[in-house]
Amino acid sequence: MKRIFSLIALFCMIATSLSAQEKKAYTLEDVIPGGSNYFNLIPKNMPGLQWWGDVCVRTDVDDIKLYDVKNGKESVLVTLEEVNNALKSDNKPYKLTQEVKPLHTLQGASLPWEERKVVMFFGKAGDDKTSETYALFYDFDKKQITEMFRIQEKDATNFDFCEANKTLAYTAGDHLYIANAETKDLTKAVSLIPTGGKEEPNAVVYGQAVHRNEFGIMKGTFWSPKGTYLAFYRMDQSMVTDYPQVNTTTRIATMEPDKYPMAGMTSHKVTVGVYNVSTGKTTYLQAGDPTDRYFTNISWDPDEKSIYVIELNRDQNHAQLVQYDAVTGEKMGVLYEEKHSKYVEPQHPLTFLPWDDTKFIYWSQRDGFHHLYLMDTTKKLKGEWKQGKDTDDQYCEYLKTTPLTQGDWLVQQILGFNKARKEIIIGSTEISPLQTNIFALNVKNGKRTLIGKKDGMHRAMLSGSGKYIIDNFTSNDVPREISILPTDGKKGVLLLTANDPLKDEYNMPEITLGTIKAADGKTDLYYRLIKPVNFDPNKKYPAIIYVYGGPHAQMIHNTRFYDARGWDLYMAQQGYVMLTVDSRGSDNRGIKFENCTFRHLGDEEMKDQVEGAKFLQSLPYVDADKIGVHGWSYGGFMTTNLMLTYPEIFKVGVAGGPVIDWQFYEVMYGERYMDTPETNPEGYKGSNLREKAGNLKGRLEIIIGGTDPVCVPQHSISFLRACIDAGTHPDFFIYPEDGHNMMGRDRVHLHEHITRYFTDFLK
Amino acid sequence: MKRIFSLIALFCMIATSLSAQEKKAYTLEDVIPGGSNYFNLIPKNMPGLQWWGDVCVRTDVDDIKLYDVKNGKESVLVTLEEVNNALKSDNKPYKLTQEVKPLHTLQGASLPWEERKVVMFFGKAGDDKTSETYALFYDFDKKQITEMFRIQEKDATNFDFCEANKTLAYTAGDHLYIANAETKDLTKAVSLIPTGGKEEPNAVVYGQAVHRNEFGIMKGTFWSPKGTYLAFYRMDQSMVTDYPQVNTTTRIATMEPDKYPMAGMTSHKVTVGVYNVSTGKTTYLQAGDPTDRYFTNISWDPDEKSIYVIELNRDQNHAQLVQYDAVTGEKMGVLYEEKHSKYVEPQHPLTFLPWDDTKFIYWSQRDGFHHLYLMDTTKKLKGEWKQGKDTDDQYCEYLKTTPLTQGDWLVQQILGFNKARKEIIIGSTEISPLQTNIFALNVKNGKRTLIGKKDGMHRAMLSGSGKYIIDNFTSNDVPREISILPTDGKKGVLLLTANDPLKDEYNMPEITLGTIKAADGKTDLYYRLIKPVNFDPNKKYPAIIYVYGGPHAQMIHNTRFYDARGWDLYMAQQGYVMLTVDSRGSDNRGIKFENCTFRHLGDEEMKDQVEGAKFLQSLPYVDADKIGVHGWSYGGFMTTNLMLTYPEIFKVGVAGGPVIDWQFYEVMYGERYMDTPETNPEGYKGSNLREKAGNLKGRLEIIIGGTDPVCVPQHSISFLRACIDAGTHPDFFIYPEDGHNMMGRDRVHLHEHITRYFTDFLK
Repeated sequence: MKRIFSLIALFCMIATSLSAQEKKAYTLEDVIPGGSNYFNLIPKNMPGLQWWGDVCVRTDVDDIKLYDVKNGKESVLVTLEEVNNALKSDNKPYKLTQEVKPLHTLQGASLPWEERKVVMFFGKAGDDKTSETYALFYDFDKKQITEMFRIQEKDATNFDFCEANKTLAYTAGDHLYIANAETKDLTKAVSLIPTGGKEEPNAVVYGQAVHRNEFGIMKGTFWSPKGTYLAFYRMDQSMVTDYPQVNTTTRIATMEPDKYPMAGMTSHKVTVGVYNVSTGKTTYLQAGDPTDRYFTNISWDPDEKSIYVIELNRDQNHAQLVQYDAVTGEKMGVLYEEKHSKYVEPQHPLTFLPWDDTKFIYWSQRDGFHHLYLMDTTKKLKGEWKQGKDTDDQYCEYLKTTPLTQGDWLVQQILGFNKARKEIIIGSTEISPLQTNIFALNVKNGKRTLIGKKDGMHRAMLSGSGKYIIDNFTSNDVPREISILPTDGKKGVLLLTANDPLKDEYNMPEITLGTIKAADGKTDLYYRLIKPVNFDPNKKYPAIIYVYGGPHAQMIHNTRFYDARGWDLYMAQQGYVMLTVDSRGSDNRGIKFENCTFRHLGDEEMKDQVEGAKFLQSLPYVDADKIGVHGWSYGGFMTTNLMLTYPEIFKVGVAGGPVIDWQFYEVMYGERYMDTPETNPEGYKGSNLREKAGNLKGRLEIIIGGTDPVCVPQHSISFLRACIDAGTHPDFFIYPEDGHNMMGRDRVHLHEHITRYFTDFLK
Repeated sequence: MKRIFSLIALFCMIATSLSAQEKKAYTLEDVIPGGSNYFNLIPKNMPGLQWWGDVCVRTDVDDIKLYDVKNGKESVLVTLEEVNNALKSDNKPYKLTQEVKPLHTLQGASLPWEERKVVMFFGKAGDDKTSETYALFYDFDKKQITEMFRIQEKDATNFDFCEANKTLAYTAGDHLYIANAETKDLTKAVSLIPTGGKEEPNAVVYGQAVHRNEFGIMKGTFWSPKGTYLAFYRMDQSMVTDYPQVNTTTRIATMEPDKYPMAGMTSHKVTVGVYNVSTGKTTYLQAGDPTDRYFTNISWDPDEKSIYVIELNRDQNHAQLVQYDAVTGEKMGVLYEEKHSKYVEPQHPLTFLPWDDTKFIYWSQRDGFHHLYLMDTTKKLKGEWKQGKDTDDQYCEYLKTTPLTQGDWLVQQILGFNKARKEIIIGSTEISPLQTNIFALNVKNGKRTLIGKKDGMHRAMLSGSGKYIIDNFTSNDVPREISILPTDGKKGVLLLTANDPLKDEYNMPEITLGTIKAADGKTDLYYRLIKPVNFDPNKKYPAIIYVYGGPHAQMIHNTRFYDARGWDLYMAQQGYVMLTVDSRGSDNRGIKFENCTFRHLGDEEMKDQVEGAKFLQSLPYVDADKIGVHGWSYGGFMTTNLMLTYPEIFKVGVAGGPVIDWQFYEVMYGERYMDTPETNPEGYKGSNLREKAGNLKGRLEIIIGGTDPVCVPQHSISFLRACIDAGTHPDFFIYPEDGHNMMGRDRVHLHEHITRYFTDFLK
């Protein structure tokens, strides 16, 4: 048996090898986003696919297509031509001084009302000087433009359209605007609230995401369910120090100050306003002094009488779910509290059950993993502090609370509800922490019905009624499958099976998944190993660890190439063994896996990465003296740290946009994990890479974006100074005018640059 | 004969070779300024040597020594101990709240009056908070402190002491102060003139050098000969754009704006004030609108009635010597004018003959070289435009003028006069453009008497009467000789003959001087060639050109190692052939040699450097494929330009603090050679290295000081952007917080870094 198997294996190898020789070698232009051939080589997708109620549609270039949920049959709902005809027609509910230009694509269009045959889209009029934007509504039953309104501000952004009151909230500069349409008249957008007389840009900002987008905050406007109110953030950052970014593209370089509150320094102050659309009046929530507090996850009660805010102290170890009266702004009470010796991190707003307005879902990690809890607003409790399961978490419930999910896995998303079956449609890691599966969770009995394939990553959108999902599925084995699946777990209809042009046409490396033990000797860590293209087991290859290592991120998933990036594949082709390990501190493994790094970022993560390096060194085909490391952002911090802490292992490193000293990082993210420089001086000193500058032995290049607003240039510049003072020799490069990451063509250049560095010094 | 000679040569070679093997190899610590052993290896000097009338003294650490001008015998004039005893004594003409601390050295002391036995020095009192500076006068006849005055401002600088009225002018911040002592009272320094209500730092600056130190301007205060007036510069730069320099050493980086007028942009406005010490009133010279004008080389008439200013238009092609009434500020007339199709560059103030107040010396290049002209204020002329000899220069004399020197060589300095013999003591290139010789120039007959050795560089100081010079002499053959020489050309007395510890103890390379033809096919250019240490004629060595190439500088002199820098010697030891060529455009060869680069900087200079490269490639021991280039500032511009323009010749370059685009360089220097971006668009485009970014083929590293105030970071940063956009790959490094040059330990680090780059890519 054995011999036969070996012969077959040998035959397969020869066959593979032969075919491999016929296949092409990819370039960075093929595999790096921004590369000239990149988009041609990724598996086909169906951008614009979305739900219009329970109707599956796709806003495409030339039309809006419709897909039959029963058989997937495609038909055309609206054409670009008819929209443009309507735009040209005189049969319009308005008079304009300048014509709206014909659209070139319907890709950005939407169908906001499931009961109305209306397409909403944005149109442009005028030239560079007179440029205006219009929100337009095309009725594809009447085949005419039925409504529109003008957005005068050229820098308008953060559009938030309320279907209930047909009003558009948006921001321009530091201001917040709302615009709506009265039959045939254009409604002029008006500034909602003055910035308080402050002339300094960014001193007071309205309607934008606050707290530097931490705590799940992605936006700054929150329409009430019926459109009566618009809740919004107001952020006063006049007391925050500017980071002096420099723009070198002007005739003479100019300073572009950026409000950046650094760890331990004075932070901004956030308040929440509630604008009444009919009265035009604004009430602010009476939350008290906003100094050193976070106002997160704003949620509306279905009856619009209450607003809920999850409030957090600056130390980020005490969260309170607070209810406010939406009309008066008065505080109505605290519904839930949670404390942790390390940190509590609320990231999700409340979700009320659509069939029962008295109950909402609350997210908590109090039992070690993100799980859902059902709270009953009709059943008040006195409140009693309890201990989370196997965590340092303490919580106090003032409403009767029922766990909806439990276990050593975590809920990642609530897609919505199947109202008929009283099910919550969720995405979770129940099957594997490397993937998201979609389940219908029965609220009554907690039973979960799997929707779609078991092994791989599902990205889903739920239909209006909750009866279907659009399932965008991918795994290491499946380039892409897009289906419409019923949420009862039954078989659905396939819209797309994509092949992988890269796999088909190019000579690919072998990519494997596995686990090693963490430095604690017990925790399993996932790794992804890529062998060189045309692998020869008798050779000794240099190896590079691609590392991130920080919280909120995971580098390995059961997706195409196990989530390997194009550069990793490229380097495998250049003759490197590529390894990535998701060390402790990273995402989707629960709170204890994550928070073991608290107050000493880098230490545990590095120990785990060293386990990865040892694993590499144990491989017979790896040259143990040629281990390199590369990472960006937190991965840049890790790369630099590894080069300085384990110089006997890591010989060449390229660190992009690194954190060097956490005192230069911002308050919200930084203090969660590190507290402040004042309360954790040892931790800040221990993780300050300037302190280790003298340890540099190998070749380390630091690369930054010239105006990186996230890891500000001060990190890397001060590190160079420390190395110079210590007599060590890092290398350095800047991508001028780029931010925290290089995009487009710069990204290709960047990876040429990084590759060249390893070729120069590791190969 | 021939055979015998060869044998001797062979024997010498063996002997040299043997001794070379016994000698040490130097490190960068030995040969780079800032290196730990650098000062131990340079030939001894006698810092502090100076004239006290006709008495030669030396302010040393522990004493002030006296050297007999006849026999060089050393004796002690004043000891540190007695000065400190006097400081401690109660026998002082004042009462102080805090004691002046004991001095540690007399090195900074001076003897301001040749007729008085008084030492002037600065003393410190108080601690960090209460720190005060005092100007003190120690009478070494009476052995007591006789006078002193306090300088309250902590940032006091630009001290300018007037011996005639015993008053000290100085600046602090943007202000100008004067301080003097009344018998026993301290005189409080008072702010002279308010800054005009402007709160912005550097908006209006008093008493400092203006016009960015071009036109020979080194200071901003000018005492009248008898101390009745203080003339000073006032510079209004409120209309000048700030360059945003960033300081990354603060808690959060801070902007440090620096007024920087870029070519073609709005420049500062300078006026000249005259402060009357006895009345306390200030009169401004009535020069008219100062917009786009340069006020240079302020000179006083011996009778204090007139002030002379050489005024230049912004285009820098028309200079006027203007006389003003010192009391009223009224313009009295134009005494001399000069125009040139390229530029006129006045760099020297007037010098009146000490024995005839009616005559002064004026410097001009109108006949092709810097020469001296004697103007007679009693003999007025109508003024007639004439043509300079063999130049584009046109000049107009309103006073009778007599050339004092003529010829294809240039005067470099006026040391002063021998009044008795009516001679001007000058330094000139008459013997060789590679050196300065001192001559006594007879005013009457123009005869020049050579003082000191013929071949080599003389740096001299003239005694009070003009009878002696202190001659600090060095050449490639003579490490250093310091002598007191009579100015009549006779033999003097030797104070010091220094050996060269580097030559004595270390294994040195062979350094030779020679000439090649410039690219014009006719002009001789000097080169300095350094062969590798332990040279083997059968080997093929990589070679590096060290280049500067800009005006006002010359890299080769007949001094120690023909002026080779420590790094050049070091690289020769590392196995490189090192070449430097003073190409057309450089100093000390006359105006036509210099101004052939006008409006297209870089082009001619590069052609000449290419001749240097071809010369290298013609040498049998040079690897023609391994030619590198390195230079700083203008040399950084040349290096980058050569790498981009002649990529087939230059394979590796390191460019420090380079000009990339002359539109980012300052008005005064930049427009002299390039006019403005508006009037010379082709020239600016042709020399803009961003335009050539796509040509980069070899390895080019750009290195800058993080806050370089001369070649601002915008040059290099914008070049990186251009390369990224063009898809080419330069390397880059920053020395944070450093300026245009790296000093001290940073300079050692820098040269380790540069060396590493050539080792990585050229060797």
